[in-house]
Amino acid sequence: MRTLKLTLSYDGTDYVGWQRQDDGRSIQGELERALAEIEGRPVTVNGAGRTDAGVHALGQVASVRLAHRIDTDALVRALNAKLPAAIRLRRAEEAADRFHARFGAKQKTYRYQIETGRVADPFLSRYAWRVTDPLGLDPMRIAAESLTGERDFAAFQAADAGAGSTVRTVHSVIIEPQAPTSFLDTPGLTITITGDGFLRHMVRIMVGTLVDVGSGRREAGNMAGVLASRDRARAGPTAPPHGLFLVSVDYGRPR
Amino acid sequence: MRTLKLTLSYDGTDYVGWQRQDDGRSIQGELERALAEIEGRPVTVNGAGRTDAGVHALGQVASVRLAHRIDTDALVRALNAKLPAAIRLRRAEEAADRFHARFGAKQKTYRYQIETGRVADPFLSRYAWRVTDPLGLDPMRIAAESLTGERDFAAFQAADAGAGSTVRTVHSVIIEPQAPTSFLDTPGLTITITGDGFLRHMVRIMVGTLVDVGSGRREAGNMAGVLASRDRARAGPTAPPHGLFLVSVDYGRPR
Repeated sequence: MRTLKLTLSYDGTDYVGWQRQDDGRSIQGELERALAEIEGRPVTVNGAGRTDAGVHALGQVASVRLAHRIDTDALVRALNAKLPAAIRLRRAEEAADRFHARFGAKQKTYRYQIETGRVADPFLSRYAWRVTDPLGLDPMRIAAESLTGERDFAAFQAADAGAGSTVRTVHSVIIEPQAPTSFLDTPGLTITITGDGFLRHMVRIMVGTLVDVGSGRREAGNMAGVLASRDRARAGPTAPPHGLFLVSVDYGRPR
Repeated sequence: MRTLKLTLSYDGTDYVGWQRQDDGRSIQGELERALAEIEGRPVTVNGAGRTDAGVHALGQVASVRLAHRIDTDALVRALNAKLPAAIRLRRAEEAADRFHARFGAKQKTYRYQIETGRVADPFLSRYAWRVTDPLGLDPMRIAAESLTGERDFAAFQAADAGAGSTVRTVHSVIIEPQAPTSFLDTPGLTITITGDGFLRHMVRIMVGTLVDVGSGRREAGNMAGVLASRDRARAGPTAPPHGLFLVSVDYGRPR
């Protein structure tokens, strides 16, 4: 058996999310179905980030063990011929036997797009959250600073998430007045968050809370108290999924 | 009655095109339906460019005559609340009584996006034509030069198009190695065409013919002969609609 590292991009709009589910099309399910056709038996893939329904990926990483000896470039072509157009395998690489896309991930980067134009952008209805309140960057950046470092993010986890440690390290939260990628010149903000790992809905709750701060509904100095409370009800709303992109997953030294 | 100039953007993917048809949702039909709700009686709009099914618009212009005295900013808000998210009214302006979006148009600009990456871009499946043959820019530019100026474009018109003059003036055809707008760094070409008017499918047949030249299937020096033939069968294929954007419509001096 060989182990492969797969790098994928997908438009998550029409999927129930990364994870295979009993009903609804998932990214994992589509990928496993296509791989099983090549392998000739059922195949399980492990994904680095379990993106929610509607969340997109530029560089999701998955690992898979295959017996088939197909060359990696041929695998890219064969798999893309079997996958829907919304999901593309960008690269396949041989990996060490012990490589596991989820457990081996050292760092992930997410990007969140916010559009702030007077009129909604028809090309962003699947790719950005439209916020019409004016957003103050300075308070958002002060709040973001409090969310950086090794913290207990229990308050920033989906209420129905499982047990386990809620301590994560956020390396950086960069908030830029950068227009979302579009065919139109629509103004907006881009929030880029890098960390060693993220709890369920954590990025979206961070973004929802930062937007609360930017719009003045919440004090920038409020973050330490929210973190200390470990109470989901004290953080802001969960930002909608369609503005979120999993940009990349890093594994440290090359394998 | 007042006359209004409406500037619109739309994602044409899920529509049968600009023009109202008996079956299928059209941009014109959606706009007329929304305007009729405000006006309280049926309304007819005239569009500058009758974009095909799947073709997008950044700056389509339409004219309409209304009795209702609603303020233009309020009209933008009210209409956008009634239109589907894929269609947005960007601006409404008072216009001279004689203003007609189609007959008054002096110049139109279209943009066509081609993606040339090794792997298809999942975020461009609705917005670019994927061409996998290597494309030579120099021959394409030589061919484009022959398609510039006042010419009889009969050979570049849909075979089933109606009668009427087939002479049009193309002001410029600019071919750039510019990546299509996407969340991924996908390589490609952008072709920008400006002219005083375009026959049915003319832009898409020009693009299909230029791609034939770029890929070496057709000589760059071949264009004069194709034009002189006035024979649709002598030009190249009609490029797919989803790479095409109506960028803007100019009316000369301000009205």
